[in-house]
Amino acid sequence: MNKVILLAKRPVGKPALNDFKLITEQIPVVSEGEILLKSLYISVDPYLRGRMNDIKSYVPPFELNKPIQSAVIAEVVESKNADFKTGTFVSGNLDWKEYQVSKGKGLTKITDQGSGLSVYLGILGMTGLTAYLGLIQAGKPKAGETLVISGAAGAVGSVVGQIGKLLGCRVVGITGSDQKVTLLESKFKFDHAINYKTVTDLNEAVKKYCPQGVDVYFDNVGGEISDAVLANINKYARLPVCGAISLYNNTAAATGPRLQPLLLTKSATMTGFIVSDFTEHFAETQKKMTSWFKEGKLIYSETIIEGFDNIPQAFLDLFEGTNQGKMIVKI
Amino acid sequence: MNKVILLAKRPVGKPALNDFKLITEQIPVVSEGEILLKSLYISVDPYLRGRMNDIKSYVPPFELNKPIQSAVIAEVVESKNADFKTGTFVSGNLDWKEYQVSKGKGLTKITDQGSGLSVYLGILGMTGLTAYLGLIQAGKPKAGETLVISGAAGAVGSVVGQIGKLLGCRVVGITGSDQKVTLLESKFKFDHAINYKTVTDLNEAVKKYCPQGVDVYFDNVGGEISDAVLANINKYARLPVCGAISLYNNTAAATGPRLQPLLLTKSATMTGFIVSDFTEHFAETQKKMTSWFKEGKLIYSETIIEGFDNIPQAFLDLFEGTNQGKMIVKI
Repeated sequence: MNKVILLAKRPVGKPALNDFKLITEQIPVVSEGEILLKSLYISVDPYLRGRMNDIKSYVPPFELNKPIQSAVIAEVVESKNADFKTGTFVSGNLDWKEYQVSKGKGLTKITDQGSGLSVYLGILGMTGLTAYLGLIQAGKPKAGETLVISGAAGAVGSVVGQIGKLLGCRVVGITGSDQKVTLLESKFKFDHAINYKTVTDLNEAVKKYCPQGVDVYFDNVGGEISDAVLANINKYARLPVCGAISLYNNTAAATGPRLQPLLLTKSATMTGFIVSDFTEHFAETQKKMTSWFKEGKLIYSETIIEGFDNIPQAFLDLFEGTNQGKMIVKI
Repeated sequence: MNKVILLAKRPVGKPALNDFKLITEQIPVVSEGEILLKSLYISVDPYLRGRMNDIKSYVPPFELNKPIQSAVIAEVVESKNADFKTGTFVSGNLDWKEYQVSKGKGLTKITDQGSGLSVYLGILGMTGLTAYLGLIQAGKPKAGETLVISGAAGAVGSVVGQIGKLLGCRVVGITGSDQKVTLLESKFKFDHAINYKTVTDLNEAVKKYCPQGVDVYFDNVGGEISDAVLANINKYARLPVCGAISLYNNTAAATGPRLQPLLLTKSATMTGFIVSDFTEHFAETQKKMTSWFKEGKLIYSETIIEGFDNIPQAFLDLFEGTNQGKMIVKI
């Protein structure tokens, strides 16, 4: 039998386990031109929360009582498609199923498994592309500038900070535990990290650790953390908005300080993006990230949860910040 | 005797006449290398409100009991400087004085007076540069796109809309009276104009007149008008912030919907600017604007108030929207 996780109902506010439903079905039969995929690693990501709402967007919402989809690493265990031999490893946007058939469309073969497979969900996959392209295209960092990152110990944040250091920036991270502060400063070599939960005045803390002001703010969280950083931006600051995890579970539209006067005074630019905005740069970026990774210039952090049944809980844990780096479920 | 207008106290909220003080002093004596300037036209602009606050900014605040400064057209009435003959007309950032001396630094000679002098405070001066460069550099409009402008009948807005039409955009303006709606649609050839004061639901009105959504929003006002426009933006929208006149007189920081989730969903970019960000493009832009203007492709609107003593009132009137186009005081 084959386990499948469906969206049982649309979460209101913070998602809960009973928004999901685990069912079993027959393992599908492979037709001519198809392959049977066995899921090995499944990525859970904050952005999936948005697709659980029934709102018009450029990425359509998940359908009720249909499987959820995310980035998955899978093995071809049966093939009636000459392009995919049995034993091939692939990544792609796939259903939350133990087994599924595919015609191969949209799948990327993983030919080099020297660094392990899960890395292709993270630093050498969408996470790495998001970090690099968001920082470079929307953040436009220059050597000597100060880069602040919120959600700094998360999958994308910890990579953004390392790229910032490689580019010669002063890098300051904001995160939610002392353990993560230590991790960012010692393992990821951030210049400083700030625990927003224990600091008495985040605005003052940012000011202290960014004595030259903030030139680039890579924002993963939104909300009051961002207010504190924005109070310290320099003229011509660039403000890539990669995520707003602090706001995803709000049931009403969040309010906060109006940004127009600040952007006006500072001639600053705030840019929202998703990684697919930069598809044209994927190939060159993957080459660059792979090269940095193999040279040991980028360190990778992941939190691996074991067991297909635990996918929903792993997703919920993202909103508690229990992960360090990329959150992955190993099947 | 020489009349001078000083900043008597820093306005709290909406400025009032007693924030200004009219004094008289001796007409200054011209030393070697100097010229004596007689003010002819004085520009009053919403951005001056910001300089009346005592806050650190890249443009320093006006000093108490010192003359206010703005763009002025003046005539050289006495010269001990070989570069400026008596009878020359100049524009520059000058004191609110009937007469003042200058060494000539920062002054631009007006050699072609065929279109009148006041035009060099408006469409062929900073107003035109602001409209063109803000729209082109931050708005990046493409033919066929929809451009919405708030403060559309103001000095900058009415020029932005005309440039939008010249570039092949659908142009919709938002303004505050039926008279201005008529002006925008008939004289300035906007596709549509909306009176935000009488419309029952501005969000719905923008939707109605922008059936393809909003690609570029040139924002002069901020606040709730902008909220309604932003609810209608397209993927990859560009949002130049030129002004926030609805917020300038707030005594506390204004709050509103947090923008990060919207910018994220739409991969949109919001850019604050002041015209001096684009200094490198001034020469080519002035050439282009002059050429369009002389070909009759750009129409110019100004509200002229007479009398030096009326400068403060003309400035206050900006916040009531009594002007159509550029507000100028003729001395």
